[in-house]
Amino acid sequence: MFETVALGRRYSDKEYAELAPQLRMRLFEAQRQCMERGIPLLITIAGIDGAGRGAVVNLLSEWMDSKFVRNYVFWMETDEERERPVEWRYWRCLPAEGTASVFVGGWYGPSVRLFCCGELKEHEFNANMHHWRGLETSLADSGMALAKIWLHLDKKRHDRRLKKRLENKDLHHFTPYDKKTAENYEGLAEAASRAITLTDRADAPWTIVDAADANYRNLAVARAVISAVERAVAARDAKAIRVRAEVEEGADDITREGIISTLEAIDLSVTAENDGYKKELSALQLELRDLTFQAYRKGISSTLVFEGWDAAGKGGAIRRLLAGVDARISQVFPFSAPTDEERAHHYLWRFWRHIPRAGFVTVYDRSWYGRVLVERVEKLTPREDWSRAYAEINLFEAQLTARNNILLKFWMHISPDEQLRRFREREEVPWKQYKITAEDWRNREKWPEYVRAADEMFLRTSTEYAPWKVIAAEDKKYARLSVLRAYRDALKTALRRAREKKGK
Amino acid sequence: MFETVALGRRYSDKEYAELAPQLRMRLFEAQRQCMERGIPLLITIAGIDGAGRGAVVNLLSEWMDSKFVRNYVFWMETDEERERPVEWRYWRCLPAEGTASVFVGGWYGPSVRLFCCGELKEHEFNANMHHWRGLETSLADSGMALAKIWLHLDKKRHDRRLKKRLENKDLHHFTPYDKKTAENYEGLAEAASRAITLTDRADAPWTIVDAADANYRNLAVARAVISAVERAVAARDAKAIRVRAEVEEGADDITREGIISTLEAIDLSVTAENDGYKKELSALQLELRDLTFQAYRKGISSTLVFEGWDAAGKGGAIRRLLAGVDARISQVFPFSAPTDEERAHHYLWRFWRHIPRAGFVTVYDRSWYGRVLVERVEKLTPREDWSRAYAEINLFEAQLTARNNILLKFWMHISPDEQLRRFREREEVPWKQYKITAEDWRNREKWPEYVRAADEMFLRTSTEYAPWKVIAAEDKKYARLSVLRAYRDALKTALRRAREKKGK
Repeated sequence: MFETVALGRRYSDKEYAELAPQLRMRLFEAQRQCMERGIPLLITIAGIDGAGRGAVVNLLSEWMDSKFVRNYVFWMETDEERERPVEWRYWRCLPAEGTASVFVGGWYGPSVRLFCCGELKEHEFNANMHHWRGLETSLADSGMALAKIWLHLDKKRHDRRLKKRLENKDLHHFTPYDKKTAENYEGLAEAASRAITLTDRADAPWTIVDAADANYRNLAVARAVISAVERAVAARDAKAIRVRAEVEEGADDITREGIISTLEAIDLSVTAENDGYKKELSALQLELRDLTFQAYRKGISSTLVFEGWDAAGKGGAIRRLLAGVDARISQVFPFSAPTDEERAHHYLWRFWRHIPRAGFVTVYDRSWYGRVLVERVEKLTPREDWSRAYAEINLFEAQLTARNNILLKFWMHISPDEQLRRFREREEVPWKQYKITAEDWRNREKWPEYVRAADEMFLRTSTEYAPWKVIAAEDKKYARLSVLRAYRDALKTALRRAREKKGK
Repeated sequence: MFETVALGRRYSDKEYAELAPQLRMRLFEAQRQCMERGIPLLITIAGIDGAGRGAVVNLLSEWMDSKFVRNYVFWMETDEERERPVEWRYWRCLPAEGTASVFVGGWYGPSVRLFCCGELKEHEFNANMHHWRGLETSLADSGMALAKIWLHLDKKRHDRRLKKRLENKDLHHFTPYDKKTAENYEGLAEAASRAITLTDRADAPWTIVDAADANYRNLAVARAVISAVERAVAARDAKAIRVRAEVEEGADDITREGIISTLEAIDLSVTAENDGYKKELSALQLELRDLTFQAYRKGISSTLVFEGWDAAGKGGAIRRLLAGVDARISQVFPFSAPTDEERAHHYLWRFWRHIPRAGFVTVYDRSWYGRVLVERVEKLTPREDWSRAYAEINLFEAQLTARNNILLKFWMHISPDEQLRRFREREEVPWKQYKITAEDWRNREKWPEYVRAADEMFLRTSTEYAPWKVIAAEDKKYARLSVLRAYRDALKTALRRAREKKGK
């Protein structure tokens, strides 16, 4: 693949002096367009050692308004990063609307290096690439401009520069000298070529740049970034037209025939025995305390998501569950309207930022499922965005559950009659009044739409690694016990797996 | 001091059953009041090992609405924390308006432990305490409710519980067993007593709780938190009255007689030689590149603050300076209006969150000085808040410059005539038009007020460790060279100091 690149393209200094100012101005204008239209810009600068990644990063900072550009070199993971899903370190550096992030190496770096050194199997490498490709698709779909640039050198030039670098002892570079990779040109080129082939897409294409000539390299990089912005602008315009059409058509949800209603199948008549409740609850809480400590010590994190009808008892269940977990290793995050910083990012960003370190228990009171529930039903998000969200969420949850971490999703289910009873009760009891708002009554009117949205959600996002647990919550006590039991069982399974793995 | 505490106060289970629900409700109401009035609540739970800090944290999470409570145990510093000023790890956990943070041990933990083990000298310990006291004052002044609780045990009980903990091998606790501290009861009590005496203040008092009886302990803790909220509410009301009076009086700034005008003394006629400019600029940039790399390797961070008149050439100077620093170790942060998350915190929080790791160069394009410039002149902040800010800023900057880090503050100075000329030029050149707004013209009318504010700022915040450099910027080239030279000199000094220290 790289054979076609190394054609020795170059610009004379005279040509460069003429072309550079034009491109510089166009690049600056592209950046201003990102600001005006609220487009986040992600530039990945990858490439062979010695091809001038550092020089290119400096060039971009000089040619763009560096106030709105952040550069990130992903050196060794810090311990805060190591204790979270691998994607976390990149998510926290993603650009907000109107700003740019430059990733040196980007998320490809570690996989390419490991594969080149034979420390990653082919199928693992491919899986990683599909994974990053999926993430890039999701980012591009959300309106981000992605420029992915690979700076290449042929073997002769690479070896020459490497020799020079090694001779120069006062070396100005950041990545520690990686002998295994640097001296294995063919291996690196092969890994990179495979990575590029697997992750090249129309909405996030690779630009391969022959970096032998610095003049050519600089201009090619600027052109690639400008194209990425143009692509994002065009995609945004096209999308605006589609969305307008959707609104004008008054297009309703696609009613997907053949979705079996999970909710209708739930038996709401089940109740807990009054006598045994307190005793069982205490016993479960004690059990949880012990199990969560074991999980903490093994670094197994738990993510517990609570969704369900208003007044279905989410808060009460969460309180009982957390009474069984030491407060020093647990946190609840309630989600309602996003802050302005959150609004300026991909919709999953606000959840990524709270992902805890290893061993912690995190409860999400409402969650990323708002995308396919309230945002769908209230038409806050265009159909094309929420219908894509199922796949995005499944990918996200796969990341959360890597390394034996636990993810449970609870839907607290009640009947409309029971909801009405509880709403009325809230209105009557003085210290419960703050819990009921006009919005709750409005949501209630859309019960059938929510049922349809929830059923489709169960169908599309109940995975083996992150199953939905629909909890019959007509009887609060029964519901609470069910939640605690489900979590206990999940902890036991994860701990058993950890033991088995260790035993092997 | 603790003698008066260990009076064996206790509540029988019957009394507890009666009192607990009342206090629980009052605590919950206090929390709701924090939400309604936008008060951040910081609860520090410190104390002797075995006194039940964990139990108290769990109790608070159960009694309050845990959705808006975050618990933080400060274990070993992570590497991301280690590379920043020690305060950073606490700043990032401070509560936003309407939420609560519970700090286990809090910022006292490390100093008390080290002093108790003889690893911290008395004057160092005292300096630390004065430091935290200053921070707490600043937080309380900004409207935060602070509850500081020390859970105490007498020696007999402490030793008994310690023995029991050591016997129980399946120990449920987080802090690793610290033999030196745990077995030195007197030393710890002495250190704690000293810490408490030094940091007890009317607006952030300590509550010392005899933790021998869990019933008494729980109720005393709840009472302390409720009082903290009441104190904050009262302080807020009192302040609102003072601020209203200030507005009604139309009270102008106190014109402080005897402030020598720094700005009037600046000779603006200085210019750079046209011939030598390019050459000297390149030479300085090359020098900077080398020096910043050396500083990077030694972990010496640079913070460069740019303030000054609109159109005084901040942007141009920053660009020339950063052209001399590798983009992979430098960042610019422009500051204008805060985001809503920033607005919900202490005004310094938004600057703390961007403090880089060791060795990096950070440029602040506008900064925390907005507090005593635009916020003062435009009356966005009451006088009592901005006039307090000088001391707060000096404290903040002392933290930034610890460990030989560099902090330089540039004021780009031009004459009103030159500003007018540049404004007109901006209006005429098409690609500069976006740089000039109606606000710039409005600010210009307040030139004398800004001079007064700037002069007072120089007087009160030019410290030996963080000096102001007023740059004559009537001639752009001269100004740029001055900025680069000042930074070069600061780098050389810091590097020399590092060598000398190593040499010792």
